[in-house]
Amino acid sequence: MKGSLKSKLTIDQLAAGILQGDRVILGQAITLIESTRAADQITGAALLERIISKTGHAIRIGITGVPGVGKSTFIEAFGKHIISQEKKLAVLTIDPSSQLTKGSILGDKTRMEELSKNPNAFIRPTASGNTLGGVAHKTREVMLLCEAAGYDVIIVETVGVGQSEVSVKNMVDFFLLLMLAGAGDELQGIKKGIMEMADGLVITKADGDNTKKATEAMAEYQHAFHLFAAAESGWTPRVLTSSAVTGEGIEETWKMILIYRDQTMASGFFDANRSQQNIAWFQEYFDQLLKDDLQKFDSLQSINKELIKSVGNRTLSSRQAALQYLAAYHEAIRNK
Amino acid sequence: MKGSLKSKLTIDQLAAGILQGDRVILGQAITLIESTRAADQITGAALLERIISKTGHAIRIGITGVPGVGKSTFIEAFGKHIISQEKKLAVLTIDPSSQLTKGSILGDKTRMEELSKNPNAFIRPTASGNTLGGVAHKTREVMLLCEAAGYDVIIVETVGVGQSEVSVKNMVDFFLLLMLAGAGDELQGIKKGIMEMADGLVITKADGDNTKKATEAMAEYQHAFHLFAAAESGWTPRVLTSSAVTGEGIEETWKMILIYRDQTMASGFFDANRSQQNIAWFQEYFDQLLKDDLQKFDSLQSINKELIKSVGNRTLSSRQAALQYLAAYHEAIRNK
Repeated sequence: MKGSLKSKLTIDQLAAGILQGDRVILGQAITLIESTRAADQITGAALLERIISKTGHAIRIGITGVPGVGKSTFIEAFGKHIISQEKKLAVLTIDPSSQLTKGSILGDKTRMEELSKNPNAFIRPTASGNTLGGVAHKTREVMLLCEAAGYDVIIVETVGVGQSEVSVKNMVDFFLLLMLAGAGDELQGIKKGIMEMADGLVITKADGDNTKKATEAMAEYQHAFHLFAAAESGWTPRVLTSSAVTGEGIEETWKMILIYRDQTMASGFFDANRSQQNIAWFQEYFDQLLKDDLQKFDSLQSINKELIKSVGNRTLSSRQAALQYLAAYHEAIRNK
Repeated sequence: MKGSLKSKLTIDQLAAGILQGDRVILGQAITLIESTRAADQITGAALLERIISKTGHAIRIGITGVPGVGKSTFIEAFGKHIISQEKKLAVLTIDPSSQLTKGSILGDKTRMEELSKNPNAFIRPTASGNTLGGVAHKTREVMLLCEAAGYDVIIVETVGVGQSEVSVKNMVDFFLLLMLAGAGDELQGIKKGIMEMADGLVITKADGDNTKKATEAMAEYQHAFHLFAAAESGWTPRVLTSSAVTGEGIEETWKMILIYRDQTMASGFFDANRSQQNIAWFQEYFDQLLKDDLQKFDSLQSINKELIKSVGNRTLSSRQAALQYLAAYHEAIRNK
C-alpha cells in the first residue's frame, strides 16, 4: 500500500530522496504535503523546513486561459521545447472547480501525453482542498518540493474560471495568458483585471483561416497593453501568436520569458517580487491557521452555535456576539 | 465644543434622546459610533445594546449606480415621495474612495438640497474608515440608530465604484440599481455580479430624446433578468424608467418596493434574509475584531516585523513564520 510505504520513510529519507530528484519519493512527499491529517501536516511542515534552502532557483511560470483555448496542447509543445533546452520541467495544475467535480482533472496526465512520458517532465494535478486558498497553499508547497528536486522550470496551470488567477499570479515570476483570436470582440470575455496581471499574452491556433484574425488580435492586444499603466516590473507585456500545427510561437514564448527574467533580475525587481510574494504567503498562511485554530476548540464550536442562534433570532446584536466570541477564544487559549 | 457636549451625555440620556427622535442627540450618537477611540467604542457598543430591541422595523433600501447616473437627483425625488407618504426617511452614504479623498462626500447634504431641509429626512455621509469593512460596520450601526430614532425608511447609497455593493446588499432588504440608457451596449460597463444582486433596476434620464433608448433598454434588461436563475427570494427583479424632468418612475419605484416587501414577508423570505444578514454581520465583526486584537499587543508587532524580515530575505519559510506568529499570539493572550 502506498500509504504504509510513505509512512515508513523518515523525514531524513524523504528529504534525501527529494534532493536526489527521486520521482517516486517526490510523489510521496507531495501526497504528504497534500494530506489533511494533522500528523501528516506536522511532518510536511518539518519536511519543508528541511528543503527550504534548496528552493527558489527555478523560473516559475503561471499559465491561464479560458477552456477551449488549447492550454494542454500549448503546454505540451512549450514543455517539450523547454526540455530540449536541457531543463527539467514540472507542471502543476490548479483546478478550483475540482471541489465540485472531484477527480475531474485526473485526466491531466493523459492530456499532455508526450510530456507525461518524458523523464525530465513531472506532471501533477493539485488535489482539491476545502478552500481555494487551501489549494493555492498546497500548490505553492508542491512547487517548493519540485524546486528542491531539481526542476528548473515550474509551470502552474490554472483552469480558467476566474478564481485562481490571483493566487497563481502571486506565486509565479511570469504570468502568461493564452487567448483565442476572433471570438467576437477581441477584448470581450476576459476580465480587464486578468489582462493587467499578464506579463505576456499568446494568441493560440494562429494557423490556416485563423492566421489573419490572430495577427489583427495581436496588434489590438499589444495596443491595449500600452494603454495600461506601466507595471511595477518596468516590463511592458508582449503579445505573440502561436500554432500547434506549425509550431510557431513556442520558441518565441520561451525567449520572451528569458528576456523578462534577465531584465527583471538586472533591475532587482525579480528578487524584490519574490520577497513580496513570500511575505504575502506568510499573511495568507496565518489567516488560514487562525481559521483552523478556531475549529480546534470543541468549547468554541458550541459557543459559536449558540451565538449564531441568538443573532439569527435577534436577541443579541451582531457586534455583541462577536465580542463574546473573541472573549471565548481568549478563554479557550488560556485554558489550553 | 461638540466633543465635550457629547461626553457629558450618559448612555441613558443618549438612548432616551434617540428613542424620542431627537436629531441632535442622534447626530451625537452617530459621531460616537463612528469614533475610533477605544473608550468611545465601548460606550458605543453599550448604547447599541440599549437600543437593539427598538430596531428592525424600517424598510432598508440600497441604491447604487455609476457616477453620472443621477443618483442624488433620483434620491431627492424618491425621498420626497416617501416623505409625502408620511414616512420618516434616513439617507446614509457609503464612499469607499473617501479613504483617499477624505471629506469629498461632505458635499452630500447640499447635493440633496430640498431633502436635507425637510424635518422628516435625515441625511448623513458615513465617515471614512481604515477599511471598507470598517465603513460598512459603521453604516450598519448608524442604520440601527436611525431605526431606533423612528425612521421608517433607510436608504443606503453607495458611490458606485464596485467595492461596496456587496456590503450594502448584505445590509438591506431591497437593492436598487440605477442605470443610464444608451451608454453603448446596454450590458456594458456593469458587472454581471451587480445585476445579479439587484432586486430592481431603474433607467434614469428617460425623457426627451432619451425616451426611446430608455424604453428599449428597459426591455433588454428585463429580458436579461429572466435569463438569470430565480433568486432565493422568489422575486424576479423589475425594470422601470424614470425622469427627474417628468417625475415618471418615482412613485412606481416606491410601489415596487412595497410589493416586494409584502410578497417576501408573506413567503417568510424577508425575515429569513434579515436573520441571515445578522449572522453574516456577526462573522464580519468577528473577523474585524480578530484583526484589531492582533494590533493590540506591542510584543506581537515587533515579532511580526521580525518574521516579515526573515520571510522577505528567505531565511524562514512562510508557513513556519505563520506557525510562529500564531504561537506568539497565543502566548500574548496567556500573558495578558
